[in-house]
Amino acid sequence: MDDAASTNERRFRLTVAYDGRPWAGWQSQVGGETVQDQLLAALRAIHPGIATVQGSGRTDAGVSAIGQVAHFDAPAEASLDAGAWLRALNTKLPASIRIMDSAEVEPDFHARFSAVAKTYRYRIWTGSVLPPLEAGLAWHVPRLGDRKKLEAALDCFRGRHDFRAFSANRGDGKDEDRDTVREIFEIVTDSGEDWLEITFTGEGFLYKMVRFLVGSAVRAAQGKLPIDDIVSLSKGVSGSEKAPYCAPADGLLLVAVRYPGD
Amino acid sequence: MDDAASTNERRFRLTVAYDGRPWAGWQSQVGGETVQDQLLAALRAIHPGIATVQGSGRTDAGVSAIGQVAHFDAPAEASLDAGAWLRALNTKLPASIRIMDSAEVEPDFHARFSAVAKTYRYRIWTGSVLPPLEAGLAWHVPRLGDRKKLEAALDCFRGRHDFRAFSANRGDGKDEDRDTVREIFEIVTDSGEDWLEITFTGEGFLYKMVRFLVGSAVRAAQGKLPIDDIVSLSKGVSGSEKAPYCAPADGLLLVAVRYPGD
Repeated sequence: MDDAASTNERRFRLTVAYDGRPWAGWQSQVGGETVQDQLLAALRAIHPGIATVQGSGRTDAGVSAIGQVAHFDAPAEASLDAGAWLRALNTKLPASIRIMDSAEVEPDFHARFSAVAKTYRYRIWTGSVLPPLEAGLAWHVPRLGDRKKLEAALDCFRGRHDFRAFSANRGDGKDEDRDTVREIFEIVTDSGEDWLEITFTGEGFLYKMVRFLVGSAVRAAQGKLPIDDIVSLSKGVSGSEKAPYCAPADGLLLVAVRYPGD
Repeated sequence: MDDAASTNERRFRLTVAYDGRPWAGWQSQVGGETVQDQLLAALRAIHPGIATVQGSGRTDAGVSAIGQVAHFDAPAEASLDAGAWLRALNTKLPASIRIMDSAEVEPDFHARFSAVAKTYRYRIWTGSVLPPLEAGLAWHVPRLGDRKKLEAALDCFRGRHDFRAFSANRGDGKDEDRDTVREIFEIVTDSGEDWLEITFTGEGFLYKMVRFLVGSAVRAAQGKLPIDDIVSLSKGVSGSEKAPYCAPADGLLLVAVRYPGD
């Protein structure tokens, strides 16, 4: 696969926001009920010559985004500029998927391979009842437990670690060999009376990694997972040992993807 | 109709939150696709002897609430206390409708007639693209115009006025005779880079009144409605003269209803 646009094509970068609730995730699937399928269909409705649209990475079913990034190549004869693509796409897409920004980029820009950092936010509702406007957008944890233990667990994740235990196998046979070391640059918590948000910025995240980190931190806060276990799991594990808790997709939001020069 | 609970009944007050998007408003309708119908069905699933549930007032299709208030009477033989009603109702209701609070009240408490103030918030999205998570929850006004004119329009609404021009007829034949003087205690605006919220607190609001006030203020900001016209409309009109703009239901949220002793 040639990842750079050919000389008679123009490459565009899109910032994509979506409500994850009605969609079966980012990644194209038979049936077309994914964000990538909807976006490709909209692109092709505007210009049938468009072959593919590449995202920065997949997000699972139920995960929302305000700053997913994707790129596509437009044939030279498609005369639309970046702003015209944005406007045209937003007339074709359902309201639950929007192009928030667009730019023409160099032919070697690649939404996945050029990314240098990603930011995910995980929202937890700690009030006793989950309000309707939070449904599907937050994990409902009415008894969160000890905030200090939660912070202690998050401390184990800052920096460079082998996060193999905090990731799911994709089932593609290559999992055991893959590089599972990642650096987390920053973890920030913010909270109100009835909610808590944990924002992770890192060079990249393994499959379901943020959900494993949040699930483990919450179970630590609840006294169900000793901090010592988290420390040992975050030193890297051999084989298929996994952290025992994965938070639901509902609370996860892809906030931003950063590229050189941003 | 006897508005007080009889001696062998216990009256309960419920604080109800709902996502207005999937529902045809508060008020019961043939078909049952309203919040009141869903709530009554849930109450009757718990105790078939419950006759009715009374809200503080209706909200239109598409309008959401975080603090609607309703009351119902439970037969004496229903032994549930306020907390048990809350928990039982939330297991029966769809996730888009939640009981946020419950309390046993005196038999003469009435969700509608005892109310002394209501607070509504109207959300406007001013960014160029409406994000998916705002869809149905904000009015998209990418060119809001002059904020000073918007504030000048809102100034016309503070205090006690005959708001007849800023209300819709319900079509029940009684409109022309009704008392259309209301006092607005407070109007507060709050804004971020891409949004504006206007919060109205008043003794009560006429049908569609908040939407007329917001529509008029926005059109004033855009230079489409002179402030002088707003001044004259808010002095009261004779007959059926109406403000020419009504904002969509999407951005409207019933925040709170206040009662004596709250």
